Amino acid sequence: MREVAIIGVGQNRWGELWGKSIRTVWTEAALEAIDDAGVDHIDAMYVGCMSGGLFVGQEHLGALLADQLGQGPIPGTRVESACASGGLAFRQAYLAVASGAHDIVLASGVEKMTDVDGGAATYALSTAADQEYECYHGITFPGLYAMMARVHMHRFGTTRRQLAQVAVKNHAHGSMNPLAQFPSTVTAEQVEQSVMVADPLRILDCSPITDGAAAVVLVPLDLARRLKKPIVRVAASAHATDAIALHDRQDLAWLASTEKAAELAYGQAKIGPAQLSLVEVHDCFTIAEIMVTEALGLFERGQGGKAAEAGHTALGGKIPVNCSGGLKSKGHPVGATGIAQIREATMQLRGDCGPRQVSKAHWALTQNMGGTGASTVVHIFERG
Amino acid sequence: MREVAIIGVGQNRWGELWGKSIRTVWTEAALEAIDDAGVDHIDAMYVGCMSGGLFVGQEHLGALLADQLGQGPIPGTRVESACASGGLAFRQAYLAVASGAHDIVLASGVEKMTDVDGGAATYALSTAADQEYECYHGITFPGLYAMMARVHMHRFGTTRRQLAQVAVKNHAHGSMNPLAQFPSTVTAEQVEQSVMVADPLRILDCSPITDGAAAVVLVPLDLARRLKKPIVRVAASAHATDAIALHDRQDLAWLASTEKAAELAYGQAKIGPAQLSLVEVHDCFTIAEIMVTEALGLFERGQGGKAAEAGHTALGGKIPVNCSGGLKSKGHPVGATGIAQIREATMQLRGDCGPRQVSKAHWALTQNMGGTGASTVVHIFERG
Repeated sequence: MREVAIIGVGQNRWGELWGKSIRTVWTEAALEAIDDAGVDHIDAMYVGCMSGGLFVGQEHLGALLADQLGQGPIPGTRVESACASGGLAFRQAYLAVASGAHDIVLASGVEKMTDVDGGAATYALSTAADQEYECYHGITFPGLYAMMARVHMHRFGTTRRQLAQVAVKNHAHGSMNPLAQFPSTVTAEQVEQSVMVADPLRILDCSPITDGAAAVVLVPLDLARRLKKPIVRVAASAHATDAIALHDRQDLAWLASTEKAAELAYGQAKIGPAQLSLVEVHDCFTIAEIMVTEALGLFERGQGGKAAEAGHTALGGKIPVNCSGGLKSKGHPVGATGIAQIREATMQLRGDCGPRQVSKAHWALTQNMGGTGASTVVHIFERG
Repeated sequence: MREVAIIGVGQNRWGELWGKSIRTVWTEAALEAIDDAGVDHIDAMYVGCMSGGLFVGQEHLGALLADQLGQGPIPGTRVESACASGGLAFRQAYLAVASGAHDIVLASGVEKMTDVDGGAATYALSTAADQEYECYHGITFPGLYAMMARVHMHRFGTTRRQLAQVAVKNHAHGSMNPLAQFPSTVTAEQVEQSVMVADPLRILDCSPITDGAAAVVLVPLDLARRLKKPIVRVAASAHATDAIALHDRQDLAWLASTEKAAELAYGQAKIGPAQLSLVEVHDCFTIAEIMVTEALGLFERGQGGKAAEAGHTALGGKIPVNCSGGLKSKGHPVGATGIAQIREATMQLRGDCGPRQVSKAHWALTQNMGGTGASTVVHIFERG
């Protein structure tokens, strides 16, 4: 396989973008990535989107968006893996370049979630879980993650305060990200006193409903060098699955798909977690970030909560997690999230992150997860 | 890129499968393909599905189905391009094998369309067109194809009888396919007297609403040889797009994405249309088959209707089209259709098609199309 590099990134300001259609939201990010790459065309494009059908009544986004970008007749492919759709779209784009099938490929993600009411959005999101065995019986995603949180708290002594510290840290990081949906900072007391959603998870433990898009441009490494672009090399691309329904899992307090994808990715990159300069992870709920940091091997099993409370995951800590603000503060347009993580990793490795820059960043890892962890996509990037 | 071969195929009997869930329908086909391949595991899987969200309230099918197959933690990726989802899933699986990322890959497709009522199914299908500029104004797919048919009839003198002959021929072929949803034969008079849907298209000009799945197994060509399997080599894989909305097309009576994908595919395979032994094409409506045979270069522009009437596209004719019965008779579970086309091509090249076998089949082409032709995936296969 050919070596692959990222040479362009784009993202718009995320939020409730009621004045823009899904195609407009996406095109803003795509054009920015292409401009940033400095290329005059793309050879193919991939778009991650979880449910264009349920959110905006529009499937066939690969063709629609290639057309909208004025790049038809190039191949436009939509990839879906619930909230991991963006990361998985990037992986398919990576394989398209690595295989030699295409040279300049746009990997993108988009979701327009606020055109429907809250009930319809909750239903659409529930289609990421096992409908027949979970959702038809009434549970929604906060409830599923609340059960995971309860097991983690019971088994490892993870505390309510430790959950809150994840939100406090990610909002602090997000306050330095001009594209974040909720750049406001919050205190642990505010998190702990916010509205209860599914015990123990409160509204400030949950990532929001968001409209937004993100895009990056991939090329063969040697083309990136010829174009004299800052080199961000794709050092690993891995994807793994787990039982979709919680009741089929070996362990409710462990994300096996993340552990597996990380194991594969570390093997490809020939590094371990200790070498990472920063990670962007899928903090759809505060408990998710704690569990992900354990499954990635950043901390021992059961120690993720304590590590968050000790500040190890904050900017300046042992391993900065979600310098972008994460899903919690930056927002979570589900199909776009995995691509926005990769944009942040790329910008960090280029040294373009201003006040939220991690000093001397060399290796970055992104972890994007679907459902309650039924699918995980992990990528590792190296500064060239 | 590595050379790739197909070593296993599977499909269940298509129809209104009310007693089975989407996962059951899919698993039947997947297990048959794996059994046919004679492998004891798969390394990754791809599934084409147009709208699991709108039809059955289930997205995240890559993870769900890898789990259902008992093959987790392997990567399971869902790909969508409306009615071309199956063909595009095959293309991503092909790239995964060709790139060297995976060795034994299942490419599959599924759709469960009859669990919703006709209005909801029509709405779900309309999400393949441009919702904002086409469907929100009331038009549905039969109406869009009816406009294309009217232009073709006006410009080239294509007749009502020629449209009917496509249906007559495909039902005749389908009567020899034990897995077809509608294996009954029909006469031109029956087609011409059937219920009007969108003038000039009548119900017997339209492919049906179907539940079904199909699957194939891909491996590197050298592994296929070591396993001593009948060799069906993937000689070309191409994907192209066009304006999604009809009003943005250069020509309403021409399928530019099919022309482009075919041009790329012929170039990769280093053959022209004259060398093909058979083709499977996307006859969602009778007019579509006529237009596709022109865009593939099988007949001159405007001559597709006359060729169908002359019997050139029937078994035993110059170039047999849709020996499987096509979407018209076999059925059209949209995400599965592209894979079922590839199953038929594989079986024809192996000589496994019984009464509908094309003699001395050596090259086969499949053409799978999304919307009114906004996306097309073309594959060419060679008997090894």
